[in-house]
Amino acid sequence: MVSSKRTAFFISDGTGITSETLGRSLLAQFDSIEFAQVTIPYVDSIDAANQAVIRINKQADQDGIEPVIFDTIVDAEIRDILSSSRGILVDVFGSFLRPLEKALGVNSSYSVGKSHSIVDDQSYKIRIDAVHFALDNDDGARTRHYDQADVILIGVSRSGKTPTCLYLALQFGIRAANYPLTDDDLDDLRLPKALQIHRHKLFGLSIDPDRLAAIREERKSNSKYASINQCTQEVRGAEALYHRYNLPYINSTHASIEEISTKIISEAGLNRRLA
Amino acid sequence: MVSSKRTAFFISDGTGITSETLGRSLLAQFDSIEFAQVTIPYVDSIDAANQAVIRINKQADQDGIEPVIFDTIVDAEIRDILSSSRGILVDVFGSFLRPLEKALGVNSSYSVGKSHSIVDDQSYKIRIDAVHFALDNDDGARTRHYDQADVILIGVSRSGKTPTCLYLALQFGIRAANYPLTDDDLDDLRLPKALQIHRHKLFGLSIDPDRLAAIREERKSNSKYASINQCTQEVRGAEALYHRYNLPYINSTHASIEEISTKIISEAGLNRRLA
Repeated sequence: MVSSKRTAFFISDGTGITSETLGRSLLAQFDSIEFAQVTIPYVDSIDAANQAVIRINKQADQDGIEPVIFDTIVDAEIRDILSSSRGILVDVFGSFLRPLEKALGVNSSYSVGKSHSIVDDQSYKIRIDAVHFALDNDDGARTRHYDQADVILIGVSRSGKTPTCLYLALQFGIRAANYPLTDDDLDDLRLPKALQIHRHKLFGLSIDPDRLAAIREERKSNSKYASINQCTQEVRGAEALYHRYNLPYINSTHASIEEISTKIISEAGLNRRLA
Repeated sequence: MVSSKRTAFFISDGTGITSETLGRSLLAQFDSIEFAQVTIPYVDSIDAANQAVIRINKQADQDGIEPVIFDTIVDAEIRDILSSSRGILVDVFGSFLRPLEKALGVNSSYSVGKSHSIVDDQSYKIRIDAVHFALDNDDGARTRHYDQADVILIGVSRSGKTPTCLYLALQFGIRAANYPLTDDDLDDLRLPKALQIHRHKLFGLSIDPDRLAAIREERKSNSKYASINQCTQEVRGAEALYHRYNLPYINSTHASIEEISTKIISEAGLNRRLA
């Protein structure tokens, strides 16, 4: 399927996250090409731009084919330097800002770095508070702050609860607690009391038993915990519990953390706390 | 400065992260307009598209002005439905995929959702491992795994170490430990032994004392811990320590978690463990 290899550069005067995110989405549409990916952030000076051009041209020589460059640079002079390189330039801001200015009837501010600066004391606080909330309410150790949770994820050990809670916190400022379902909960098919009173906040995670076994095997090799029998039994129990209490749940097996998180927001109707 | 208010929709057949990230960067260039932001993910059916159109048109009525729509939808039929709405459509894939196909000399795969699917068992494992590494090596409680760390962040309490470590883990798969500098370390201006042997991995965080005091005040109101004197002394001590050992460090005061993280990667020359 893969017929050739190219390098893709994501270049920005800021963090590079916008050009990276967009560039990757676009490249994913070309599955016949294998792309090596390089991010060059903070290209906010003539000097940095010249260095980037040297790097791009060197890569072009090495690959024997022009790299693709996704840039989100606002400063015209810096962008001009980049466009002198031997790459195929996808000029993100250039493509959209002019048409948008026309449609909106106002000029945009072409200040360097402006586009990437998302600093805002209030947002920072919301995110940090959400991260600490996730950490303080991880793994069921404490349940007394569940009244402050936006959502409480439940699931068996290693079904993806903790990373999902942290992603919800960092990306969206959502306060997510998590509670691991134990054999006791699963044998009785009863929700623990601490969870029953917050039933409307519960969201279940499930996972295919063989995938779960593989993940647990990495952690505790050859253990009962990682055996396919144990994993199958726990997953079946968890799903039975979700059905019994009519709780929403998703299967995380073929999903990224981004997908799990955004589906939970969507299905549980959560409000993002960040703008 | 703000002259009007509009609504911006970020619409996607997947998580919505690409259209949101790009849309926000573009909107940040228009500081004379206040945008209310709405993300509608998983618009992957005719039905979902029709519902989105109803919502957009209703918003247009309410605002008295057309919303802006950033969409990353691959399916032509679904996109056509969206374009029938009363919004200003910024068609992200439409704008870039054709020119890219031409430049690269191959067709792209216009499969629904393809663009957003970043599921890959190996990446999942790397990210999860990095998250658990950050959690297990948070706050200096354990130092024996520092040999496996890619970077060890040091700084005073509440200077942003933990959220940064978690962001590095989730976004880049980087294994980041963190160690809080205590009064003992700062009084002696000596690095603890556990850190000295990993000196090449250390990266310092600093923060303006008044900002630190405000953050700590939220946590422990009217405490010595949150007093401006204590904060000033700790920050001065931390910076003196960084200088004494010639450690790289950044000031997190006016930076987002994304900026802190990407600057650390850039300045410490860290390798991302994800693609």
